[in-house]
Formats: sequence, structure tokens, C-alpha cells
Amino acid sequence: MINEHFLNLSGNYLFAEIAKKVKTFREQNPQTDVISLGIGDVTQPLCPAVIEALHRAVDEMSGGATFRGYGPEQGYDFLREAIARNDYKDRGTDISADEIFVNDGAKSDTGNFQELMSADSVVAVTDPVYPVYADANMMAGRRIVKLPCLAERQFVPDLPEEPVDVVYLCYPNNPTGTVLRREDLKRWVDWANEHGALIFYDAAYEAFITHPDIPRSIYEIDGARKVAVEFRSFSKTAGFTGLRCGYTVVPRDVTAKTAAGDSVALHPLWKRRQSTKFNGTSYLSQCAALAIYTEEGHKQIKETVDYYLKNARLMRVTLECLGLRVYGGTDAPYLWVETPERMPSWAFFEEMLREAHVVCTPGAGFGDCGEGYVRLTAFGERSATVKALHRVEEWLTNK
Amino acid sequence: MINEHFLNLSGNYLFAEIAKKVKTFREQNPQTDVISLGIGDVTQPLCPAVIEALHRAVDEMSGGATFRGYGPEQGYDFLREAIARNDYKDRGTDISADEIFVNDGAKSDTGNFQELMSADSVVAVTDPVYPVYADANMMAGRRIVKLPCLAERQFVPDLPEEPVDVVYLCYPNNPTGTVLRREDLKRWVDWANEHGALIFYDAAYEAFITHPDIPRSIYEIDGARKVAVEFRSFSKTAGFTGLRCGYTVVPRDVTAKTAAGDSVALHPLWKRRQSTKFNGTSYLSQCAALAIYTEEGHKQIKETVDYYLKNARLMRVTLECLGLRVYGGTDAPYLWVETPERMPSWAFFEEMLREAHVVCTPGAGFGDCGEGYVRLTAFGERSATVKALHRVEEWLTNK
Repeated sequence: MINEHFLNLSGNYLFAEIAKKVKTFREQNPQTDVISLGIGDVTQPLCPAVIEALHRAVDEMSGGATFRGYGPEQGYDFLREAIARNDYKDRGTDISADEIFVNDGAKSDTGNFQELMSADSVVAVTDPVYPVYADANMMAGRRIVKLPCLAERQFVPDLPEEPVDVVYLCYPNNPTGTVLRREDLKRWVDWANEHGALIFYDAAYEAFITHPDIPRSIYEIDGARKVAVEFRSFSKTAGFTGLRCGYTVVPRDVTAKTAAGDSVALHPLWKRRQSTKFNGTSYLSQCAALAIYTEEGHKQIKETVDYYLKNARLMRVTLECLGLRVYGGTDAPYLWVETPERMPSWAFFEEMLREAHVVCTPGAGFGDCGEGYVRLTAFGERSATVKALHRVEEWLTNK
Repeated sequence: MINEHFLNLSGNYLFAEIAKKVKTFREQNPQTDVISLGIGDVTQPLCPAVIEALHRAVDEMSGGATFRGYGPEQGYDFLREAIARNDYKDRGTDISADEIFVNDGAKSDTGNFQELMSADSVVAVTDPVYPVYADANMMAGRRIVKLPCLAERQFVPDLPEEPVDVVYLCYPNNPTGTVLRREDLKRWVDWANEHGALIFYDAAYEAFITHPDIPRSIYEIDGARKVAVEFRSFSKTAGFTGLRCGYTVVPRDVTAKTAAGDSVALHPLWKRRQSTKFNGTSYLSQCAALAIYTEEGHKQIKETVDYYLKNARLMRVTLECLGLRVYGGTDAPYLWVETPERMPSWAFFEEMLREAHVVCTPGAGFGDCGEGYVRLTAFGERSATVKALHRVEEWLTNK
């Protein structure tokens, strides 16, 4: 019999729905040059250090002595060690290579990790939210508690008022582009420790943090090793959206309870899940990821992140000059823009597409509290971004 | 709370368990050259057509105009169309590109597809069985019915005696290396249509079929479009175990019932699942896969398949000359070998490792009916395979 929880989902995944609408508009207006500031996909090519690493890895695959077949499901040691050293140990956080699980992108694991929880676990997500967390739990039939994120509280959610087993947090946030200060994140870690809850922490946009007092990893907070799983991605950090590589950190100390109240470590369970339902990430992608931890690679990807952050500044300044209220875009590649007079976000989406030929993501697609906002991304080509801003300016000025 | 179904699983995934034992033996015997005929991983390098395609795709990723970010979750059209044409239409089976879902290898989808079924669906698997089908359903807490596959019936399972919602079939079979004749497969398709059941058909080893009367796809059987999902892989067909690419076929006509008895098509549900929890396969791997459908690529991968099939023949002849009873190995890369005097398979594994320094996979790891057998794979280097056979010969002759 069918899993009827699927029938409770909206028909299309949000970004699939937008892609469909844009496709229809393009077909009806074949002469029009549409610029997308909608889906959070990068536009800048892979950096030279990554390209070189990929060519070398391809050559290895052509010779019997250097060919690689199945890799370890958890990822190659060379990559897990580079991640543990560069992203954690060198920044003073205590995470070992053995606690890193390399994957084919953060979306898979943020979607799959809920499998370790019982069907009757209660899950909290923010509103607005990246749809994967909520949809994946709806598919499993879990009850979902929404934590409203409102402008008057800088989009920082309040702690849940009722008992929940898991909360998904994403910082820098998708879609609002806002960040959590250290004391805000500490409040969550303390809450999780006090209430025996887990935090699934999506840090896919960590590379965009510019302020030194914003935590880049949840493990910078004392007590997080006991309650938090962290998801990271090379997609936005290094332009890997087409290569597919990211990783999940599951500290040895994270546990959850059985119905009888016994504590069970998540690490061996996740390892069992991955070795059963996953066969590792492409060797090529793992070699590419290793290259970003070289001195050259590190410098090159930083240039690209700075390029996108400059886009974000340009967008922010322009939109604010137009009198719009803009959030995010300083430590994140996303801008969260209040629509003029809180116009419904799908209507704003349609009108901006029709009049300015620019694609945004309607805030309502991320949840009820996203109504009256749209998300713009800073991942565009500079010239296309500037052109899109001009068009939006012209449209809104003459509106 | 934790998903306690995980606690019912054996501690390690079978192949992780074997890898651990082999690692321990190697550490204790550092001088010894161990040859693995255990895990089904390929050894021959990627063919020249694939290597060229990969270098070209890497170059595309280095330029702004040709760079590719996120691809369609279902896979690029160019690949889905090549698959539908070459693997189905040109062979007279009615499958369209829209029904193909490109993935990162068959293991993921054979593990994940059960998500579309309700928790109380009953699932049948063969015994012995590729562990993923059973483990993935155990994780979801489903009841599993085992269908014994016995030598006296050529390892063809009988139809289930009790009602089941889904049956997993794998042909050419892993682990027994046996195949289903057209009339046997027809019996299963007819049964599924009569009983409103589904068949999850794993055809990952289809490329090894040499006899023209053995079906290469379940869709060669009338009525299969209504009841069968087929999993295919480039791993063994083209040596992609390190690249990660395969595909799943979900015909528009396949349906399953709700509790109220309504029919629901699986295609849109699987599309929703994939667009929510998966972000497509590496662009490089998809370009590599496309290359095997060129004339050159096709010829080159066929040579490698023939190379492995020659290994299989060598192994079969040698082992039979030693008086062993051997199954499979003619239309499959696996040989299923009865241990002398039905010795317990883990004991045989240990002894063969210790005395001959050759790794096999104990049949008991695939289920109770696998006891008294071991699986050998034909994916070795020729010289290593020959050497392993000499060692086994010497060991068994002097035993």
C-alpha cells in the first residue's frame, strides 16, 4: 500500500514549481531575456585548483593501477581528514575525521537524517523554512511544529513552547539571509541539552559569514557535541552544485532516547544507514573537494565568495534606495525583501516576472510567515545582476 | 526519539563486516598478498570514450558560459533520452525518457524506493538476498517475508503463499548469479497483476546476459508496465562504481492502492521524493554515462564485460574441476559455490582467507538459505583471478 503521507504534500517541490512557471513564461515570450535571482544556484565556474584536481582524477580513472571503484561509504580518509583539520580543528572546534560523513550534497542528508527518528517524534522547523526539512518529515508522517520568524525579532525564532524531539536550524538562514549571534545559538544548545532534544543544524552558507562574532559552526558552542548534527556543503562554498559534494558531522557524543528511555548514539546508526542506502560520492567530486583545502584553492574560492557578497551589497543598497525593506545579504547570499505594502508574494513574483523579467522566490513558498516577502539570491553573474536591478528599479519607479 | 527499528539490524552492513575482517587479517599478516573475489567491485579502468567525455565535461565546468550548476533532479534530458532509446526503444520495449530517473547508483534507489510504501506494507525478498532490500525495509519497520531460493529449483523462488504488497527480484541474481527465464518472469508479472502487488526489479547486472532467451528488462514481459519498477546501474556495465551513476524506471502506469482502495500512480510520488531529497547526479558522471551510448563507447564497455565473463568461465571450469558444485557465472559476474560438505560459510570464508589468502563472501551473509555457499565475483584482474584460483586449488587439494 501507498505511503499516504505523500498525498498531504503540495503537488510540486517549491523550486520545481517556480521552474515550471518560468518555463511557461519563456515559451510565451521567446524574445524576452529573463534573469533569475530566484533559485540559489551559483553561476561562477569552478576555480582552477579544482579543475586541475578533476583532470588529474579523471586520468587516474583511466589506468588500471590508479583506477578507483567503490570508495568508503563515509568518504575517503584524505577528504575527511582535510575537513576535520581545516573546518574544525584549525578553528578551535573539536571534531574528528571519524565524525565526518561525506555525501553527495547537503540536500540528501538534510532530507535523509530524519530516518533515524521514530515516526512519532515531533519536529520543529522555522517558518519561513527551506522546504526540504518540513517535506521530508511530512513524508514520514511526523507532526511538525512551526516556529515563526518575524521581522520585529530579527527573524530569530523563539524556543518551542511544547516538547519537541528535533529542531532544524539553518544559519546563515535560507531564505531570510539572517544570522544567529553567539548568544542566540547558545540559547538553543542549552535548551536542547536541558530538554533532551536534538538540533539538526544546516550550515551550508557558512562561507558567507563576514562578521567575526557570528559562529560558523554550532560546535563553537559548549555542549553542542551532545545534541547537534551539522550539515555542510561545497555547493555554495566552492560552486559544486553540479559536482555534488557536501558532508554531515555526527559527533560520537550525540544521543537520542528509546521509548524505554535508554540513550542511543546516533553515529553508528547513521553509519549503518549510509552504508546500507548510499555508496559514497564520486571519487572525482571528492578529489575536487580536497583541492579547495590547498592554499591556492582556498584563495580562489574565497574570491568567488567575495564576488557573490559584492553582488549582495549592490542588491541591498539598490533595493533600499528604492524604499524597500531588505534583510540579510551581509553574511549570507540571500536577501529577504518585504514586498511593497506587503503585496502577496506570488503576485509580486508574477508581476516582477511579467514587468521586469526578473525571477525571485515567493516568500509564501517557504511558509506562512514568508508571505509578504520574496527571496533574492546574490549568486548571479555581476552584469546580469546589475541589469536585473536596473529593470526592477525601472519597474518599481514607474509602477 | 530514536527509530528503534534500527536496533533490530545486525550491527554492520555485510560488506562493511567483511572489509573489517580482511583489514584485521592484513594487519596481522602484512607480508601476505590477499586477493579479493569478495565484494562485487570492478577493477578495469574506465574506457577511453568515457575518459574523453569526462575531460571535456571538466573543461566545460571551467568556463562561465559552459559551467553547469544544479541539473534537473530527474537527470539531464540528454542522458534520459539516450537511455530510453538505447536500453528500451531500440530493444522493442516501451519506456519513455520521462519515465527514467537518473541517480547516483542503484544502491540508493533500491534502498530509498520503499519510502513510497506505507509502514504496514508487507515486503517479500528472496533468501539469499542482496542485503539492501531487506535492511532498508527493516529500518522502516516493515514485515518481511522470505522466499527461499534452493538449488533443487535452480534458485528460482516460488510465488508468495501469503499476501504481500511488494516483492524485490534481482536478475541476473546477486548473489547466486542465476537468471530467470522468460516464462518464470512472466509468472511473477502475472501474479503481481492478479494480486495488486508491485515488483521492484533490480537489473543491475543486465549487461552480463549472454543467452538471447533471457529477458534483459522486466518490461519485455506484457503487463510489467503496470506493476514493475526497474533499477539499472552503470556500475558494472561500464565500471562506474567510483563515478556513481545509475537509473530507475518508473512507468507512468504503475500504481499502488491507498488504504481506502484508490489507485495512486507512483511516478509523481517518486518525482516528488527525488526533487525533495536528492539534487541530481554529478554533471560529470552524466556526461560519462552518455559516452557509453556512442558507437565507440558501446564497443569499449562490451570488451570489458566480455573480459569479466571470461574470468567467470575460467573460475567456473577450475572450481568444477576441483569437484565443487558451482552455479551462476554464465549470464552474471557472480558464482555461487557450494562449500565442500556444506561447511558453514563464515568458517569457509575464514579458512580460505587464512590458507589461500583469497576473500569470498559468505553465503550466510545473504540469508539463511545462503548457508553452505559462498559468492565469488568475476570482477578481478585476470592475473589476480588466475593466481587466486591456483591458491584455492592448492589449498583444497591439500586439505
